[in-house]
Amino acid sequence: MENVDSVPARFDMTKYKLYSGRVKCFDIEAGKFIAVLNEREAKENSIFTGDRVVLSAHGKEKVAIVDLSEEVVERGEIGLFADTSSELRVHEGDKVDVRLVGVPDSIKVIRKKMDGVPMNAPEIATIVHEMMENRLSETELAAWVAAMYMKGLNSDETVALTKEIVKSGDTLKLDRKPIVDKHCAGGVAGNRTTMVLVPIMAAAGLYIPKTSSRSITSASGTADTMEVLAPVEFSIEEMRRIVLKTHGCMVWGGAINLAAADDKLIKIRHSLSLDPRGVLLASILAKKVSVGARYVVIDIPAGMGTKFEDMGSARSLAKDFLNIGSRLGLEIECLITDGTDPVGQRIGPALECYDVLEALQKFTPHDLLDKSCQLAGALLEKCGKVQKGRGYTAALELVKNGKAYEKFKEIVGEQGGNPNVKVTDLPIGTHKYVVEAQASGRVRLVDNRDISRIARAAGAPHDKGAGIILHCEQGDKVSKGDLLFEIIAESESKLDFAVKLHEDINPVRLQSVVLGKVD
Amino acid sequence: MENVDSVPARFDMTKYKLYSGRVKCFDIEAGKFIAVLNEREAKENSIFTGDRVVLSAHGKEKVAIVDLSEEVVERGEIGLFADTSSELRVHEGDKVDVRLVGVPDSIKVIRKKMDGVPMNAPEIATIVHEMMENRLSETELAAWVAAMYMKGLNSDETVALTKEIVKSGDTLKLDRKPIVDKHCAGGVAGNRTTMVLVPIMAAAGLYIPKTSSRSITSASGTADTMEVLAPVEFSIEEMRRIVLKTHGCMVWGGAINLAAADDKLIKIRHSLSLDPRGVLLASILAKKVSVGARYVVIDIPAGMGTKFEDMGSARSLAKDFLNIGSRLGLEIECLITDGTDPVGQRIGPALECYDVLEALQKFTPHDLLDKSCQLAGALLEKCGKVQKGRGYTAALELVKNGKAYEKFKEIVGEQGGNPNVKVTDLPIGTHKYVVEAQASGRVRLVDNRDISRIARAAGAPHDKGAGIILHCEQGDKVSKGDLLFEIIAESESKLDFAVKLHEDINPVRLQSVVLGKVD
Repeated sequence: MENVDSVPARFDMTKYKLYSGRVKCFDIEAGKFIAVLNEREAKENSIFTGDRVVLSAHGKEKVAIVDLSEEVVERGEIGLFADTSSELRVHEGDKVDVRLVGVPDSIKVIRKKMDGVPMNAPEIATIVHEMMENRLSETELAAWVAAMYMKGLNSDETVALTKEIVKSGDTLKLDRKPIVDKHCAGGVAGNRTTMVLVPIMAAAGLYIPKTSSRSITSASGTADTMEVLAPVEFSIEEMRRIVLKTHGCMVWGGAINLAAADDKLIKIRHSLSLDPRGVLLASILAKKVSVGARYVVIDIPAGMGTKFEDMGSARSLAKDFLNIGSRLGLEIECLITDGTDPVGQRIGPALECYDVLEALQKFTPHDLLDKSCQLAGALLEKCGKVQKGRGYTAALELVKNGKAYEKFKEIVGEQGGNPNVKVTDLPIGTHKYVVEAQASGRVRLVDNRDISRIARAAGAPHDKGAGIILHCEQGDKVSKGDLLFEIIAESESKLDFAVKLHEDINPVRLQSVVLGKVD
Repeated sequence: MENVDSVPARFDMTKYKLYSGRVKCFDIEAGKFIAVLNEREAKENSIFTGDRVVLSAHGKEKVAIVDLSEEVVERGEIGLFADTSSELRVHEGDKVDVRLVGVPDSIKVIRKKMDGVPMNAPEIATIVHEMMENRLSETELAAWVAAMYMKGLNSDETVALTKEIVKSGDTLKLDRKPIVDKHCAGGVAGNRTTMVLVPIMAAAGLYIPKTSSRSITSASGTADTMEVLAPVEFSIEEMRRIVLKTHGCMVWGGAINLAAADDKLIKIRHSLSLDPRGVLLASILAKKVSVGARYVVIDIPAGMGTKFEDMGSARSLAKDFLNIGSRLGLEIECLITDGTDPVGQRIGPALECYDVLEALQKFTPHDLLDKSCQLAGALLEKCGKVQKGRGYTAALELVKNGKAYEKFKEIVGEQGGNPNVKVTDLPIGTHKYVVEAQASGRVRLVDNRDISRIARAAGAPHDKGAGIILHCEQGDKVSKGDLLFEIIAESESKLDFAVKLHEDINPVRLQSVVLGKVD
């Protein structure tokens, strides 16, 4: 007997259950692997909605999630969506075997972790392996991420997780050194330092095979911005060729199968807005290990409106990076930077290219150039290329003497873009809205998040030409009617949309003596 | 700027984003509400795979999960599966509005719970409400259940959760008293006490509107067994009519919308094999409150092979039931029972009916009758129907004088079954395999879980006639060759399957001096 209230441990019927059917094709993609089984037939075989089954045909196997239907699939039929049938290479009427996946070994480990028992390396390997084989449901993965958030990961667990994430994907083998890399903890609008730093490092003779991400909720990711100038989607072989030729690249990480397990973890973390420290460290460091980097500079922006509002939490993250990094054979330099204000003057893909091209050719906006050279200098010192204390000057020199810009053009060209692109060629939107100061005063804050939201509402990053041009920064004295910023869009309707949002939030805050009035 | 590594808090664009499209129908059920959007169009509107959107048409709204496709859905089209289009009452070409659901309010509460902050009643109401509206993803629900497991629920949280589960569904209004109910914590094979207890209580003049579950992983649930004799799927109005007429019923809870939120929670708990104590209590007690019960007897089987292997854990659960129950206005009696052995002689839907009919007419199997009368007696005493200490005798008397059997026939008839069914009419399988003792000795254990597994492999509960007939119980002395049990199936292939499983596991363990040998 049993009550639905009681949740019994699942029993592994894998080796006992088996049935076969003929493929019925549905001409539509499901986005994941789904097998539609006849409801009665499945239930007779103790298979239920949401179960995972192994489908096999012609010696090929694929794990799919079960959906049941009494109507569209008859007894003896197995309904497959286009993505699943093409993956299995079967056609209408082909015979397919169905076998229950059974209870993944990970379940016990996840339960133990929930109860506070640290995972050992083989256990972490099991979870990552089963996750990569699609044997774990979203529910199971969410429980794992929640457990890692609530119980934390110790150093051993973090190191093991990093190594497994590396193993789950391809690795770049350059056979050159030194290989360097850079990472930013994020949260600052603009901040396109990668596109200035990469050519500096490459011009200095180091190898920097840089992968970047696209935006999820910000106005633009480095990959979105770089894509305005050149393609960013390459195979790992193409990436290798570009780096061997130019010493650097700026490509989209999502097109390359580096640290593959990380993509799955990020999906869960993002949907829960959960960022377990150990998983964050593993996620970032696995990518550095995957490209063979030895020296890494990490930018941790701190301050009001960033992810790290106090120095203590920024320092604690930095220490964790150094600790885990050293156990993985990485030499890491962490710079905690002032992130209260956007970096550069322009936000949005094409607009940020404008800043980058100006920084490399005309050495402005000053804050973008300065920050890029600080990071580049730290890396030059770390790998012993220049003396301690001389890094910043050396980096700036490589910009001032035009070598960084030459290298930039070389990389853009090698990635298939036009190396001679001018700022006037950039596809910047023509619909514009000007925001002026409503009063006089000193600029107290330019809010990174609000700036990103408005740029996004204006169409960024999808509309490459959309975004924001800032005409003030923290500390500026402005008078009523002075230009604070412009909203740029590719269409009137998107511009309206962004203006409406701007009226609700107020990204540029002026200092004032009276902070509020109570009647 | 942003790295995929950084997981920003999600921004609520609900009030800003909106677009419309024409319905494209897919003639297949998806099992859940899904909207297939054109990939580019959706991304321009910051809508991604897995997001929840509100679809609205003709003033009707429905929350659906987003799938993206570049091929099957063009710009301006919104692909809907059969279940979604029928729910929204739209047809090919109809106009549908799409709006992002926005970040559910529950997310913050779940995060706080993860951080160890107890939930207050309004927060629990928010989560249950959003869950019922399909606004929470499986990932989010899993995180919630994991947090409740890892951080526990205090009494206030448990009481609030129970009340919200009650509110989420219908309630039975009988306007009669006293209304009594019964629950079993599960884990024992056979154990069909409900079908003996319900007619006893009804014969005693009490009201017992009993809902039961179907099996998930056991050989049979009470609803599966009762269904051999009569239909068990009724609306709440039909249930009310049956109980008002006969004082009792034995129906399937799944067909009635009582404690609706519980079904969703059970799905998550089952897939994670997680049973947070507070959620278990809320789940069970919500059903009792929903039928208007005042007096409840709870059977907690303990002992080797059950869910409670020691008395301490069984007692702790009992105390929690009493504590939470009293705060909900329930008067609860908990009996901790010996669950080491299956109850009754037969396991499987039709086979268990055999035991029930025999118990009511011929007062055997003794253990089934005895346990049912113990539980019934406790309930008779609790509600003041008989004096303290006289419950068991009173219950047994109602069986012995035939009144319970008369009541049983009345209920079966009222539910649409044949009240005069005989044990020889039962659809018991004709394929049989006999298991004999391989040695002489005393029976040390008849394992509940293994017995259930074999019965399930033989086809139960889907094949109503499949199961096990036990010919021994714990403590019996058997000689080599004595009959231990029979496996019954409806087909030769299922029988083979069960026999194969039986050879791997060994449900009847004989006592032996040597427990193992180390070479």
